Amino acid sequence: MVKVAIVGYGQTKFSKEDSKIESVLLKSTKDLFDSTSNLHQKDIDAVLVSTNNNSKYLSAVLSEMSGIQPKISHSIESLCNSGTNSVVAAYSYIVSGLAELVLISGAERYDSPGQILEWDNLRGEFKHPIFWASIFSKAYKRKYEVGEEDLALVSVKNHRQSKNNPHALSHKSVSIEDVLNSKKLTDDLRLLDCSQPCTGGASVLLASEEICKKFTDDPIWITGIGQKTTSASFTKNPAFDNMGSTKQAGLNAFQMSKHTPLEIDVMEIHDAFSVCEPMALESMGFANQGKGLEIVNEAYASENSKINPRGGLIGSGHPLGATGISQTIEIVQQLQSNAGKRQVDNANIGLVHNMSAAATSSTVLILEK
Amino acid sequence: MVKVAIVGYGQTKFSKEDSKIESVLLKSTKDLFDSTSNLHQKDIDAVLVSTNNNSKYLSAVLSEMSGIQPKISHSIESLCNSGTNSVVAAYSYIVSGLAELVLISGAERYDSPGQILEWDNLRGEFKHPIFWASIFSKAYKRKYEVGEEDLALVSVKNHRQSKNNPHALSHKSVSIEDVLNSKKLTDDLRLLDCSQPCTGGASVLLASEEICKKFTDDPIWITGIGQKTTSASFTKNPAFDNMGSTKQAGLNAFQMSKHTPLEIDVMEIHDAFSVCEPMALESMGFANQGKGLEIVNEAYASENSKINPRGGLIGSGHPLGATGISQTIEIVQQLQSNAGKRQVDNANIGLVHNMSAAATSSTVLILEK
Repeated sequence: MVKVAIVGYGQTKFSKEDSKIESVLLKSTKDLFDSTSNLHQKDIDAVLVSTNNNSKYLSAVLSEMSGIQPKISHSIESLCNSGTNSVVAAYSYIVSGLAELVLISGAERYDSPGQILEWDNLRGEFKHPIFWASIFSKAYKRKYEVGEEDLALVSVKNHRQSKNNPHALSHKSVSIEDVLNSKKLTDDLRLLDCSQPCTGGASVLLASEEICKKFTDDPIWITGIGQKTTSASFTKNPAFDNMGSTKQAGLNAFQMSKHTPLEIDVMEIHDAFSVCEPMALESMGFANQGKGLEIVNEAYASENSKINPRGGLIGSGHPLGATGISQTIEIVQQLQSNAGKRQVDNANIGLVHNMSAAATSSTVLILEK
Repeated sequence: MVKVAIVGYGQTKFSKEDSKIESVLLKSTKDLFDSTSNLHQKDIDAVLVSTNNNSKYLSAVLSEMSGIQPKISHSIESLCNSGTNSVVAAYSYIVSGLAELVLISGAERYDSPGQILEWDNLRGEFKHPIFWASIFSKAYKRKYEVGEEDLALVSVKNHRQSKNNPHALSHKSVSIEDVLNSKKLTDDLRLLDCSQPCTGGASVLLASEEICKKFTDDPIWITGIGQKTTSASFTKNPAFDNMGSTKQAGLNAFQMSKHTPLEIDVMEIHDAFSVCEPMALESMGFANQGKGLEIVNEAYASENSKINPRGGLIGSGHPLGATGISQTIEIVQQLQSNAGKRQVDNANIGLVHNMSAAATSSTVLILEK
């Protein structure tokens, strides 16, 4: 079977800028071209755009702006895990032989229409993510006797990490007290428990084994893929204290890669809200149920956290369509020993966890040197 | 290599109904389930939604409504050829081994935001498709000394065919005079030269060779795929009297399938406007430049046209995200000798041509018994 590697990447700074979506797409694509050896437009077989933006035909628009005339060209949307869905689609185009070299560009604006799931109005007025996050937090705190201050550590750790991420939205230090004193949004959620919508772009270049060495001496291989959608609405979840789609996606990704959670050296976890980090870690088998905060604490105690080293969504910001791609880039940089002040020791195998809408769908990717 | 077949399909009637996009998706999916043997929700690995609708997370919404919990689930958008892009993505997921059974559902509402390409404002005010279609018509008529009445035959033929398509928007007879007397939209385009936006849905089920016989005795194989995007804006086309992306996509599809235009027994051509039919036929090698109308005339002379037997976009209506899938279903029905009054004789090899935005991108598929 054809092996697929990530051979290049580009990013914009995440911000609250009022930029056109086309400009955001172009900016990270240009950064990718500038930093990738021997990359010529004519060699790109497919251009995929990951976004929740309402503009149409963006992959053709980006292609034209970038001087690319691809075979395959379309947008992909699945709310907050559009980015990793695009990585899997690109992987698939390469393995199936329809493409050898695929550019993926993810972009979002701070005012993305993907922040609210209108369809969830059908279940009452719980269409904004803070409602499911609040219910998750309440259920998790009750069941596992966890306090608000325990969950706050996720935000403290991830803000500490994002200070070393030049592309992050936040470069502020945040203390437990800051989190606990931040604006109360619901009974169980404060402002600093939440990732922030923002404007940002992230692009990656995927290549087949046959051509990957042309672009980098250090290709990073996609060795595990797991995906699962359990429903579209959080009210269909059987429980509010675990993530069924993440569990299944994790099992499939580990099975495909022939690795176990113990072998993962560095990971990006979709911490849309503080409670998501321990819940996701538990669902993927990194900790027993209710014990996820123990490894968050361990990660906090080390100089560089192997959990969300770039600062997670809470520290980096959450430009929906770009998030999964930005997470993937972080793991690529870590495995290439190219993560600067965020570098985790002995990073050989990494994991990306990216999900949508109350973990009703999840993607887990395993990447290796 | 894994072979991929189309093993089931479902459709809605195309109409001007003010239906919710979720209802349209569900309706053709239900029709597919009702007409496909041995299909169980649990066996579906991927659900792809093809649409230009602004609603998010529609593949998860459709999955939940249909009782499916897929691994892979996302929307695909590329304006008017979103449908065939989704077919190619599904093909790729199966060949790459990530899926064995993929459901694709395309849907659009009559008021789709994909009807206007806002980005084309940058090139002046030519953001509505009638402007490029008008320029194409003027260029084609001038260069090949073709009259308005010659192009009108495309509309007459396709309206005749759509009378035998129970799902078509139009069941009216239309004469050359009707076309020439219909409302003048621009110097070179009348209302009956145009396909009409409408509400409609179309779904197909794709399976690997290994499992396809479970669902049908008559699988239809995807043997050729060609895709090309040349730009996002028609003003970047070097000429206005041919379709570069269609030409390239056609060459690639024929090469992959090891067939030639002479071997194609039945075809769906993206006649968004009357001039598109001869131009596309020429670009794919079915006729010499400027001679496309000769084979349109031949097709008209036969009882059932092998060019756009379901009535094309002009007769059937054009629900953007559903169109490429509906075209694919027509070819499947023809190759299965299941096309009722529209049945073309000796249909063994068929072709689908689906394009976007002034033929700035095209997909060509070749299907075989």
